[in-house]
Amino acid sequence: MNATRSRFLDHCRQGLDTLRAEGRYREFARLEREADRFPVYRHEGRDVIVWSSNDYLGMGRHPSVIAAGQEALAAHGAGAGGTRNISGTSPLIAALEEELATLHGMEAALLFGSGYVANQAAISTILTSLPGFHVFSDAKNHASMIAGMRGLPGVTRHIFRHNDVAHLEALLASVPADAPKLIAFESVYSMDGDVAPIGAICDLAERFGAMTYLDEVHAVGLYGETGGGISERDGLAHRLDLIEGTLAKGFGVVGGYVAARAEVVDHIRSNASGLIFTTALPPATVASALASVRHVKGDGALRGRLAAQARLLKAKLDAAGIARLPSESHIVPVLVGEAEACRAVARRLLAEFAIYATPINYPTVPRGGERLRLCATPFHAEAMMDALVVALRSVLPRAALSRAA
Amino acid sequence: MNATRSRFLDHCRQGLDTLRAEGRYREFARLEREADRFPVYRHEGRDVIVWSSNDYLGMGRHPSVIAAGQEALAAHGAGAGGTRNISGTSPLIAALEEELATLHGMEAALLFGSGYVANQAAISTILTSLPGFHVFSDAKNHASMIAGMRGLPGVTRHIFRHNDVAHLEALLASVPADAPKLIAFESVYSMDGDVAPIGAICDLAERFGAMTYLDEVHAVGLYGETGGGISERDGLAHRLDLIEGTLAKGFGVVGGYVAARAEVVDHIRSNASGLIFTTALPPATVASALASVRHVKGDGALRGRLAAQARLLKAKLDAAGIARLPSESHIVPVLVGEAEACRAVARRLLAEFAIYATPINYPTVPRGGERLRLCATPFHAEAMMDALVVALRSVLPRAALSRAA
Ligand SMILES: Cc1ncc(COP(=O)(O)O)c(C=O)c1O
Ligand SMILES: Cc1ncc(COP(=O)(O)O)c(C=O)c1O
Repeated sequence: MNATRSRFLDHCRQGLDTLRAEGRYREFARLEREADRFPVYRHEGRDVIVWSSNDYLGMGRHPSVIAAGQEALAAHGAGAGGTRNISGTSPLIAALEEELATLHGMEAALLFGSGYVANQAAISTILTSLPGFHVFSDAKNHASMIAGMRGLPGVTRHIFRHNDVAHLEALLASVPADAPKLIAFESVYSMDGDVAPIGAICDLAERFGAMTYLDEVHAVGLYGETGGGISERDGLAHRLDLIEGTLAKGFGVVGGYVAARAEVVDHIRSNASGLIFTTALPPATVASALASVRHVKGDGALRGRLAAQARLLKAKLDAAGIARLPSESHIVPVLVGEAEACRAVARRLLAEFAIYATPINYPTVPRGGERLRLCATPFHAEAMMDALVVALRSVLPRAALSRAA
Repeated sequence: MNATRSRFLDHCRQGLDTLRAEGRYREFARLEREADRFPVYRHEGRDVIVWSSNDYLGMGRHPSVIAAGQEALAAHGAGAGGTRNISGTSPLIAALEEELATLHGMEAALLFGSGYVANQAAISTILTSLPGFHVFSDAKNHASMIAGMRGLPGVTRHIFRHNDVAHLEALLASVPADAPKLIAFESVYSMDGDVAPIGAICDLAERFGAMTYLDEVHAVGLYGETGGGISERDGLAHRLDLIEGTLAKGFGVVGGYVAARAEVVDHIRSNASGLIFTTALPPATVASALASVRHVKGDGALRGRLAAQARLLKAKLDAAGIARLPSESHIVPVLVGEAEACRAVARRLLAEFAIYATPINYPTVPRGGERLRLCATPFHAEAMMDALVVALRSVLPRAALSRAA
């Protein structure tokens, strides 16, 4: 056994032991999704109700989305067969990109393999385009945005306190006026469900001459007249330089994208390593995503049902005295506050109540912020909510119960 | 228009103008794949024969692969609905990972969204696990491996001349004996079609106490008794620490993976940002990939046909006096040597002969190495090859024709 190998294997074993000791070792639960029965899944031979899905609208099970994928499989086969440049660009991809550009009122959009790759590739391409870029990043930004900012020569990263416009202003003011600047932030923050002050951030961007990059991953499909996200809802899309989104959550499939001015998209398309050097998404994925975006654009009632479900779940938790973070969105976080306790709660929900809610631990949230993150899709019946509340009252530690119900 | 925005937009426009001036601006051709007629595609309303597909075995059109995807769509819906940890791990993913581990004779395997993401995430996770890692990277390594090595604090990157074992040895010897070391290389190099001296590199790894990371993206499914790649063909898989592959080329779908010892895979699974923070691949993609891997493992005759096709194409090019790079694999590069000429050749092939072969320009290959990169799948009829040779003789610049046919 050579020296690097034995040291590395020791490191792996010790790191895994530490994770286990801290209750942070992740075993991926094998959940079998049954399209017809969503949000009921199969888990080890029995039915469980899943409260952790990011398929917020249940579009992954929509008949038109499934049919579009099946037809594309039959017509075009299972893979793209190449990168976008090397025979991988189908007319379906072009149609999806047009649809996404329109969704955000932008000139163009560019499809990536995932929202993660979109963030990493687009942000790193922008930051390396001009020398001496300064990027201003919300403290709660997603790992994929951070991955696009790190380790870039000549780029300075400034982290502003979460949603803190005054702190952002101070940081912007501390940098030379003529340095290129990018402000990167999210609309709906995925673990807390709170919403960024987009307008105020755009004001600062204009005052200090910065560009803006908004991750709407947890908002696209869900907010705004046509599902264009919080920026559409608040009439601010035209003030943003780039909007990034995913096809894997509100749209229920997989893939990511950025939308922006035509020349910005063309620049990223022509330069981003994470786009140029990878196989394009398969026709079936693209066809499903296209069907989903088209459907969701027109289905305001579905968005309304998601909002109503969130209100109902929050009201039921409040009535039962279950402490939750003050989310402004469809994301409903219930704080537990310690890794092993959080896992124990999830374990008991599953074992005793056939309810699945993933424990969210460090590094996804800060230590002390361990939580269950719940979302009631339009397919969660009210009786399921009631059963969830009963189960939570039974398994949550006392500290998470604010008062008697 | 604020300062950053106007500078950035100028930069985009100028960059795009430069690409156009150098003949390197990429317009993605919109090719519509028709599953039944592969390698015939639709392009702007007419049939073209594609010679640039990386669906080397045509598995993307295999009935069992298509049927598996369709069934999974019906049964499980269009998306995974979450990250691997947050309700995204289906029994299908677990089965695929087991199949891939077996394919390489490794204890475990881990699925990623693409081969690009697998390389970037796995390599960066390894290199940041011990302080002071030195990575030794073949000069022709793919962009995705390089993306996993760059910008990591405390990591030193050494680039050895392509396939040059003596240079690698000198670089290994130049580093402190007790520093952790990783050698990262490919088996079949995708743009030249040549093959790495895997055994000699493993010898050096043991002598200098380094780990080995082999990208078999252009070899999995295609070489070895069961399609385990060049490392299987040459009986060397057990000497490698990690083998990385894709599901998008020989297997014809999409996705990527690494295979290694159980604790190495578990370490990467538990720490790689590019895996933890992104939605899992959809059930249909995974089901298609699983069907493909299972089929390809058993179908040695298909691998034999690919090899025979490569021999035939090379022989026909040689007989016609068309200069090609001395590939040892199914990849057949025909050198043009200048970006605009290369694009012009491709344009004329398409316009005059309804033949599609992507021009490969910088940065995918070095300047001066511009080429067409051809591959004859088992579905390319001999008559198509003959037509290709006639067309190439007509459109290639004189310098690319070594002698009269
Ligand atoms: C804020 C945010 N951005 C980006 C992503 C990545 O999106 P995707 O799952 O499509 O890779 C996620 C979650 O996965 C996210 O929460
Ligand atoms: C050598 C090599 N590694 C990795 C990749 C990335 O694989 P994928 O297309 O699955 O992202 C490619 C090509 O795309 C490649 O040529």
